[in-house]
Amino acid sequence: MHDRDNVAIVANDGGLPPGTVCPGALVLKDQVPQGHKVALVDLKSGDAVLRYGVPIGRALRDIDAGRWVHERLLEMPDARGLDGLPMASAKALAPPPLEGHSFQGYRNADGSVGTRNLLAITTTVQCVAGVVAHAVDRIRRELLPLYPYVDDVVGLEHGYGCGVAIDAPDAVIPIRTLRHISLNPNFGGELMVVSLGCEKLQPQRLLPPGTIAIGADAKEPQLDVVCLQDEAHVGFGSMIDSILRQARPHLERLNARRRETVPASELVVGVQCGGSDAFSGVTANPAVGFMSDLLVRAGATVMFSETTEVRDAVEQLTSRAATPEIAQAVVREMAWYDAYLQRGRVDRSANTTPGNKAGGLANIVEKAMGSIIKSGTAPIGAVLSPGEKLARGQRGLVYAATPASDFICGTLQLAAGMNLHVFTTGRGTPYGLAECPVLKVATRTDLARRWHDLMDVDAGRIASGEASIEEIGWALFHRLLAVASGERTWAERHRLHNALVLFNPAPVT
Amino acid sequence: MHDRDNVAIVANDGGLPPGTVCPGALVLKDQVPQGHKVALVDLKSGDAVLRYGVPIGRALRDIDAGRWVHERLLEMPDARGLDGLPMASAKALAPPPLEGHSFQGYRNADGSVGTRNLLAITTTVQCVAGVVAHAVDRIRRELLPLYPYVDDVVGLEHGYGCGVAIDAPDAVIPIRTLRHISLNPNFGGELMVVSLGCEKLQPQRLLPPGTIAIGADAKEPQLDVVCLQDEAHVGFGSMIDSILRQARPHLERLNARRRETVPASELVVGVQCGGSDAFSGVTANPAVGFMSDLLVRAGATVMFSETTEVRDAVEQLTSRAATPEIAQAVVREMAWYDAYLQRGRVDRSANTTPGNKAGGLANIVEKAMGSIIKSGTAPIGAVLSPGEKLARGQRGLVYAATPASDFICGTLQLAAGMNLHVFTTGRGTPYGLAECPVLKVATRTDLARRWHDLMDVDAGRIASGEASIEEIGWALFHRLLAVASGERTWAERHRLHNALVLFNPAPVT
Repeated sequence: MHDRDNVAIVANDGGLPPGTVCPGALVLKDQVPQGHKVALVDLKSGDAVLRYGVPIGRALRDIDAGRWVHERLLEMPDARGLDGLPMASAKALAPPPLEGHSFQGYRNADGSVGTRNLLAITTTVQCVAGVVAHAVDRIRRELLPLYPYVDDVVGLEHGYGCGVAIDAPDAVIPIRTLRHISLNPNFGGELMVVSLGCEKLQPQRLLPPGTIAIGADAKEPQLDVVCLQDEAHVGFGSMIDSILRQARPHLERLNARRRETVPASELVVGVQCGGSDAFSGVTANPAVGFMSDLLVRAGATVMFSETTEVRDAVEQLTSRAATPEIAQAVVREMAWYDAYLQRGRVDRSANTTPGNKAGGLANIVEKAMGSIIKSGTAPIGAVLSPGEKLARGQRGLVYAATPASDFICGTLQLAAGMNLHVFTTGRGTPYGLAECPVLKVATRTDLARRWHDLMDVDAGRIASGEASIEEIGWALFHRLLAVASGERTWAERHRLHNALVLFNPAPVT
Repeated sequence: MHDRDNVAIVANDGGLPPGTVCPGALVLKDQVPQGHKVALVDLKSGDAVLRYGVPIGRALRDIDAGRWVHERLLEMPDARGLDGLPMASAKALAPPPLEGHSFQGYRNADGSVGTRNLLAITTTVQCVAGVVAHAVDRIRRELLPLYPYVDDVVGLEHGYGCGVAIDAPDAVIPIRTLRHISLNPNFGGELMVVSLGCEKLQPQRLLPPGTIAIGADAKEPQLDVVCLQDEAHVGFGSMIDSILRQARPHLERLNARRRETVPASELVVGVQCGGSDAFSGVTANPAVGFMSDLLVRAGATVMFSETTEVRDAVEQLTSRAATPEIAQAVVREMAWYDAYLQRGRVDRSANTTPGNKAGGLANIVEKAMGSIIKSGTAPIGAVLSPGEKLARGQRGLVYAATPASDFICGTLQLAAGMNLHVFTTGRGTPYGLAECPVLKVATRTDLARRWHDLMDVDAGRIASGEASIEEIGWALFHRLLAVASGERTWAERHRLHNALVLFNPAPVT
């Protein structure tokens, strides 16, 4: 991966047996599983083990060239402190703008662009989930056939809204997350809320005046709320009737919309990886990084996230920040998360999974180095705290601070304003969202083959030499434009929907 | 409510206008809304305001007899410290056992009894939720018609399993919660797990050997796991096929079961209130308390919960504990929760909702006094920490410590082994669970009338004098036996299902 590296990984399916002669005449001395590391030189106990040109740990004993360098032979380095970091020091070359690319999207009154035309029903509290699920089902069966230009109806169900310390300092995170999800560009600004009535998270608190987009007629629409406890509701059926009745004008307005040609700069792409293996940093993530640079050159927005997976690359982030203020914001997010983990008596090493380790990732440092490649090489132009929404007109590369949990990260990227999601996976996941198309990229060809109707793109062809990073990066870029224009991903075809899972660092009561 | 009280509440629908002459010649000097308090005597600034015979606050200024005593006129007392509490000091009279009551239930190999015959599919991680939802839908449509004695199939979806600090000290709570839910008596011991493969919460960690019930043949069954990342799975369809195939033997065994007559002592009833108002402590909760005493006399198990709603009645709990050790366990749970709230920079006052206040509850003290009445008068025979499961053979009244959040409390009571749920509500909620019947009790007749197909029992007749607490308590007791025997509640008829929402005080990563 880097000239300085003293380990490399075995790319071959099924791994390689001892005695295998590798390029450069290195002879394997152990059975080395696919994706796992082999020592390229004799390492002494205490030597730094280098991958991606950085120390991912120290050898706990002498390791001969050709030996399997597994996680139990490595001591993880301490996390880099947050003082004295290089701030906005990298002088990025400004690559030429990429022009002439477009997609067919739905323009919204607030200037954002949707890639899907969905009716979303916002809920204030879990209490209403059963009723809303029932209503969504009826809308899908009875009303959607009358509104053929509406792609689907989505109930924004969640576990928040009552029984929570809503005035706790950290409660701002789940509340703004829900607020901003309901404003996602794929919902066309058609806000519709189902509330119970007595819950802590009142509709006016969730969506105070001023959060609703002002339309072409410069009048802020009234918040459309169905309150189940309203005295007008007599019986369950009348609650369902209210929701269906109030859905109709929204459906009518959505149904009148048509896709139009918009520049690629209107894409807001959230990138994420989950079920990572050692190939993530070799195939899929570098290709996504290349794609990310293309998107930034095209004037689009790319969000990368997952704080615990970039914590060990904090120097890269602060140096790549476009200004010292943005570098400071990166440090602020890392410090907040360090303290949050410490409160729960853990640290960043809590991130790695059994699957990561089986896939060859020794520790969070190695995982982070492979993860951050997704962000490409552009300067970081903005930092969002968890649940914050992109400012209007914000373009380029954005660090949206989120936990690394796939479903929490996806939920927060939806809140940030993502209209397209790119998800790389090494071990494989059927991940999908009801709110936004998810394009899944396999790090290995054998996964892409086995999961032929779940993986949208095979980046494993990079490891086998069949395709270059650039080729897969360009293919991803073009595929994104097609999906943004309406082409359905595998997760959409099977209707695979993960739950919205909120990040709530505040107490429940 | 109590001889010492210097306030009383207005029971009348719509409240009462100034000038109304009340029994005892008290004349109202304000418009007093339904459920709200009126001063029975002249109160001086600083006087204790007594309801349920205990101070729910101090008057912030002079309040004349006949005035509305609203929340802004009351200063909330500090929480009682946890030192010097009366420990197991109450000498409860042992009421005569209640014999001869039974229901038709499903006996399980571990000795527990189910009230429903459900196939539950346990999931290790949110990642598999989309696939499991798809499979559950297919099982319901294609397989259930072949197994008419199986009531339904339930996917135990949740937001945990990966992207979490699984080794954090507090992670024990969500993990054991999921483990114990999968062992709920309504699932007949037919454990079936869908796992992704690379997640942190591996099936063996979720359900280690020894947690699975040992059947009549004294052999512990192998854990039945469908792992989506298994190499044998080629494509999405093969994952669905695996789940359907592996579901069949479970469905066959469940389908062979029949209800049989079992004593009422096999009931494990979780009681909870949500959307409380000032009537909760006057009508529904006292009737549930009476029912609870009947159940305990019949040898059944009753769990009450909601730590922040009993914190202000801690003296009642510790004095009612059957032994000093149980009283100590009560103190341990309260102290843990105090510290948990403090970590998030809030206290118990974060509990009350806008609906509580609109319904006449001034603060958490008043709410707590009305809440704890649900537990009746029996001695407390055991305390469970959040997510713990009842010990085999444990009977009587149990304090299952949980947050007061309706959905989190219900989730934890399922884990504790609840086979029937009684839920009282003043403001109204359509709450329901897929895993267990929920019997909903309205505190007010006008709610019971309006929500005629959501409320199972009207306890408001106590306030209007049409029925006594004892009568409603007995009616609840008989209704419970009917529901336990298969009679469906309103939530079941409409299939209103709230999500499982886990209590995870540990960090996510």
